[in-house]
Amino acid sequence: MPRLIALLTDFGHHDIYVGVVKSVILSRLPKAVLIDLTHSVPPGDIPGAAFQLRAAAPYLPEDALFLAVVDPGVGGKRRPICARSGGRLLVGPDNGLLRPAASALGEPEFFHLDKPQFWLPRLSSTFHGRDLFAPVAAALAGGTPPEEVGAPITDPVTLVFPSPLIASGGARSARGEVIWIDHYGNAVTNFQPEYLAGALEDASAVTFTVGGVDLGPPRTHYGASASGEALVVLGSFGYYEIAVRDGSAAERLSLARGTPVWVRGAP
Amino acid sequence: MPRLIALLTDFGHHDIYVGVVKSVILSRLPKAVLIDLTHSVPPGDIPGAAFQLRAAAPYLPEDALFLAVVDPGVGGKRRPICARSGGRLLVGPDNGLLRPAASALGEPEFFHLDKPQFWLPRLSSTFHGRDLFAPVAAALAGGTPPEEVGAPITDPVTLVFPSPLIASGGARSARGEVIWIDHYGNAVTNFQPEYLAGALEDASAVTFTVGGVDLGPPRTHYGASASGEALVVLGSFGYYEIAVRDGSAAERLSLARGTPVWVRGAP
Amino acid sequence: MPRLIALLTDFGHHDIYVGVVKSVILSRLPKAVLIDLTHSVPPGDIPGAAFQLRAAAPYLPEDALFLAVVDPGVGGKRRPICARSGGRLLVGPDNGLLRPAASALGEPEFFHLDKPQFWLPRLSSTFHGRDLFAPVAAALAGGTPPEEVGAPITDPVTLVFPSPLIASGGARSARGEVIWIDHYGNAVTNFQPEYLAGALEDASAVTFTVGGVDLGPPRTHYGASASGEALVVLGSFGYYEIAVRDGSAAERLSLARGTPVWVRGAP
Repeated sequence: MPRLIALLTDFGHHDIYVGVVKSVILSRLPKAVLIDLTHSVPPGDIPGAAFQLRAAAPYLPEDALFLAVVDPGVGGKRRPICARSGGRLLVGPDNGLLRPAASALGEPEFFHLDKPQFWLPRLSSTFHGRDLFAPVAAALAGGTPPEEVGAPITDPVTLVFPSPLIASGGARSARGEVIWIDHYGNAVTNFQPEYLAGALEDASAVTFTVGGVDLGPPRTHYGASASGEALVVLGSFGYYEIAVRDGSAAERLSLARGTPVWVRGAP
Repeated sequence: MPRLIALLTDFGHHDIYVGVVKSVILSRLPKAVLIDLTHSVPPGDIPGAAFQLRAAAPYLPEDALFLAVVDPGVGGKRRPICARSGGRLLVGPDNGLLRPAASALGEPEFFHLDKPQFWLPRLSSTFHGRDLFAPVAAALAGGTPPEEVGAPITDPVTLVFPSPLIASGGARSARGEVIWIDHYGNAVTNFQPEYLAGALEDASAVTFTVGGVDLGPPRTHYGASASGEALVVLGSFGYYEIAVRDGSAAERLSLARGTPVWVRGAP
Repeated sequence: MPRLIALLTDFGHHDIYVGVVKSVILSRLPKAVLIDLTHSVPPGDIPGAAFQLRAAAPYLPEDALFLAVVDPGVGGKRRPICARSGGRLLVGPDNGLLRPAASALGEPEFFHLDKPQFWLPRLSSTFHGRDLFAPVAAALAGGTPPEEVGAPITDPVTLVFPSPLIASGGARSARGEVIWIDHYGNAVTNFQPEYLAGALEDASAVTFTVGGVDLGPPRTHYGASASGEALVVLGSFGYYEIAVRDGSAAERLSLARGTPVWVRGAP
């Protein structure tokens, strides 16, 4: 049985782009099993895509192949690469997109996809998802080892997510930010419980503030507040998130990626 | 061959939520076959989701499993449940969502999904679609009977769709409402031909009115009117719907869910 | 193994329409493999759908079946048809939608789907995608030959894409137009390199103009311009397209389908 192929792109659903990538894969590997992680990454948003990819990665089978294409540099000098980490394979452009997921899954090795015999015969300069990444992914999912489709490299592009900062005045508070707004308008912050436990002088009773609004301590679940009320919960990927019960926190509190969020420890 | 798994949620396409649910299922049941009914139910819209689920249910194979998650009460006291009805299985939160489809398919039995050994090892309080419903669905689709994943219950939450009313003045007219607006802007009413035949004194020549606009009798198909003209047709799920040829009835006539619709029988 | 079934519709993602079509297919052909080309064709946009279908067609396996439904005439006199061309099958309404793809794949034969025994028992007048095309596609994908599901016809509806015009004053310039706006806001024109080589007196150094803006000669790839700058590149389906690096050409230059585009040859 071939490796499961999980797709994540910024191709959207308006065009045939995702369908054509799947067509190329299935033409070469008819027994391929494909799932969509998302294709609604904002166009060219490499950090957003990298965050989503890393969040999804642990839930896939242990031999999954990730085909991730957010590729504003297509046709230029950026390299096409494959990473192997913790048994999984990740295929995409060398622009940082694959790095956080690859590092979360294990100790990654990287390969430059430099063997044209695995690509479509004609390589466009605008759609390597179809012409290069899809056929290489089909080969890899079908059992070809990374060593055959590319040469090892040790200098892939790195990408680092914004870390929370310890505020001046010591470890009584910390400044983080919103790193993702989801479909419901929930605002995912870059605060994790483990971080706060390590960084704050006393993390036994944290409270959150955003845009001057005191959100109080984290609640147990969305329903632990009144309808329409803002609250903080520990989100499903391990980060605290700001939500509004039966509503959109992003709209209600004017939150966007990069909006600063403050946490104070116990006084 | 495992049961076909049909997904219906309000997760949208912006995030990896649907993809992660599928990942969990395929990690546990690699031969699972999954289809999407829709993931664009408005956030938290339980009646809308229940209507869609019931409409789709008869078209799935006779041993299908429905995984339906619209779950504003996640993490609180609402129970996770499974229903078995007419050979199919339905999995989701106990908030009324599964009930209309389960009742339409047969005589439903219900089970409280209270066996943590079938869940992911760590249960979040915000994403039971991933942590509880997906792994239980994988077990059930793979052949585990409902009795093993939960205890029988007899008091699931009910949900009743708004029924048309017979207007005062007898059975010469009836008042219903719009219960769904589709992608094309067609407005599905809660009038069915069988209802009108039973309720009106003379249903041989009904005419429809909405917002003061006389729509006349039902037409045979969309093309039976001029371009841009409003009309009523018998929609594909058995309800009369208001449409505008080559346009959106919802926009043109300012229709929304709950908009009252009147039917008059033959004079 | 059944033929791969590739779906292209204007059904959108808001409703269960696509899911129900797949349900009908899988009920009748449980081993069917389905992929989505797109379901976001603008409602009723037959030329747009035909363009997308033709663009995708060459990337599918050589025995693929295309199920394409953009069907404003559903329930009326338009015929349901199947085309066989170059080993592939195409199923949909006889309104021109299938024609360009069928002609691109080979020498098409056409069949009128006039055998009700292959349809669902009850045919609605509003959703032939579910009631007629899906079950016929399942039969064809499973091995039933087109001759059994319909009678041969020789007069399918034609559809011709807008061709570029040679401007008055001879072959020093040509007038084309925008034929598709994609998810990124790239504007696909109807100019192909082969056309320009044949039509212009000297195509060795063409330059493009749209809305009075000089776009210069085609560049090698999106990144060959400064961020925010408009440019022309040879797009992935063989047409020149107008793009803005890190932005939307459609928004920036107010482009839409039908917007005129000019090409001048070498002076």
